[in-house]
Amino acid sequence: MPSIVDEQIHPHASGEAEKTVNAHSTPQDLLLYAGWFCPFVQRTWLALEEKELPYEYREVNPYKKEKDFLEINPLGLVPAIVYQNKALCESLIINEFLEDAFPQAKPLLPKDPLERARVRLWIDHVSKKFNAAFFRTLQAQEEEKQKEALGELVEALQKYLDQVKGPWFSGEVFSLADITIAPWIIRLYILEEHRGFKDELVGGRWKEYEKLIKERPSVLKTTSEPQYYMEIYQRYLRNEAQSEVAKATRAGRALP
Amino acid sequence: MPSIVDEQIHPHASGEAEKTVNAHSTPQDLLLYAGWFCPFVQRTWLALEEKELPYEYREVNPYKKEKDFLEINPLGLVPAIVYQNKALCESLIINEFLEDAFPQAKPLLPKDPLERARVRLWIDHVSKKFNAAFFRTLQAQEEEKQKEALGELVEALQKYLDQVKGPWFSGEVFSLADITIAPWIIRLYILEEHRGFKDELVGGRWKEYEKLIKERPSVLKTTSEPQYYMEIYQRYLRNEAQSEVAKATRAGRALP
Ligand SMILES: N[C@@H](CCC(=O)N[C@@H](CS)C(=O)NCC(=O)O)C(=O)O
Ligand SMILES: N[C@@H](CCC(=O)N[C@@H](CS)C(=O)NCC(=O)O)C(=O)O
Repeated sequence: MPSIVDEQIHPHASGEAEKTVNAHSTPQDLLLYAGWFCPFVQRTWLALEEKELPYEYREVNPYKKEKDFLEINPLGLVPAIVYQNKALCESLIINEFLEDAFPQAKPLLPKDPLERARVRLWIDHVSKKFNAAFFRTLQAQEEEKQKEALGELVEALQKYLDQVKGPWFSGEVFSLADITIAPWIIRLYILEEHRGFKDELVGGRWKEYEKLIKERPSVLKTTSEPQYYMEIYQRYLRNEAQSEVAKATRAGRALP
Repeated sequence: MPSIVDEQIHPHASGEAEKTVNAHSTPQDLLLYAGWFCPFVQRTWLALEEKELPYEYREVNPYKKEKDFLEINPLGLVPAIVYQNKALCESLIINEFLEDAFPQAKPLLPKDPLERARVRLWIDHVSKKFNAAFFRTLQAQEEEKQKEALGELVEALQKYLDQVKGPWFSGEVFSLADITIAPWIIRLYILEEHRGFKDELVGGRWKEYEKLIKERPSVLKTTSEPQYYMEIYQRYLRNEAQSEVAKATRAGRALP
């Protein structure tokens, strides 16, 4: 496979995230294949940190499509985990798996079946509406298209926010809903600098919620330094990225 | 809101499905808002039948966006359920809710956390890849686009089929994976008659799996007569449907 521009990524986590990586370098039953830069990875990384599960962090560059990694996840996407010799991928599904497999650890889904369903409903919303609008806003080149996508993004955030019981999505307890949106909250500054996103556009209690998320210890512990993210997102801003997500966004397809 | 062509729908279930509706006309704690024609509804309807839960079936025409129904589901989509005075929508999330809320009923997810995750992974695949390709194939007007979409659809089915342990997705036990794909298997004849779909294109054990699904009692009990479906899908085949699904497909957006 020819080398693609997306391969050029700072090779490891930095700042607080680097410390966390170093603290998880010894072999464990649960192995996380991760890219420090990846928002989908951060979802699973956050769940592991919140649940305080023992895990080994292993850095992969998913754009290189190395044979070893393709054997773990034929789709070639991070995050992936290996547990008891079995591999699993997809951030949201790994997170549900962690709930099922480690019932003694701190739960990240509410007990009440209806509230669990509400959490899942809005995870689905973040995933289908907000994430898709995020990448459309990032990759749109014409000003009109950028505005349209930004409008959809803001609307998706407002709808989500309306459902936040406060302080967290599900009330007093931090849940998979907060985890699902957190990595994008961390990356909104990119749209702020380049696509006219402003907290004021969302309004309501947005700033409060955003601040809480940004200050959450697990979030701080899994976030690298901003300049290294920017390096990657520059390719999206020019619509030159060749990742599966970037290609799906260009083709008008659901995100992988 | 102006009346749209999609509102013209045969007003009730027919054939076997009509009998099932009639058997579920008395009030129950669990109320299903349904459209007899809707494949997403059929997913939840199948779960209810498989779990043998008591439920009341209530027919709604979701295209009419009647005030009463919008109060239940502001998105105006079926299926929706009401349970203990709380409303819930989204077929896949309702199905997970039924698992959580009625643990004493027949389970539709395997117990082993890794196998549960595998089921969820392929439900996600059906939902993101196969369903989207189904509607693209249906709505594409140019022959080339139809072929391209059909190719994606066949590929999505092959990938799913590769994961079917047999006889059902997860082995001996019928699960939410089988339920998630079943309504579309029932509707594949439309693509067969109008878009050149053939079982042979999928190959492998496809015909066996398809036959099992079509003969499953719960599937038979929730399926209406073919001519009434065709009436609706004609609008998709001409790309005139104005449903949220049709609009998302045209706009290159993730299905709602
Ligand atoms: N739906 C997946 C998406 C994962 C994903 O797209 N990860 C990116 C990195 S942020 C990746 O591995 N990209 C490799 C590629 O696109 O080739 C999830 O939620 O886990
Ligand atoms: N993602 C939803 C989709 C439900 C859906 O699109 N239902 C259609 C009927 S098949 C509907 O209610 N359409 C009304 C509309 O599009 O306005 C689910 O899985 O429940």
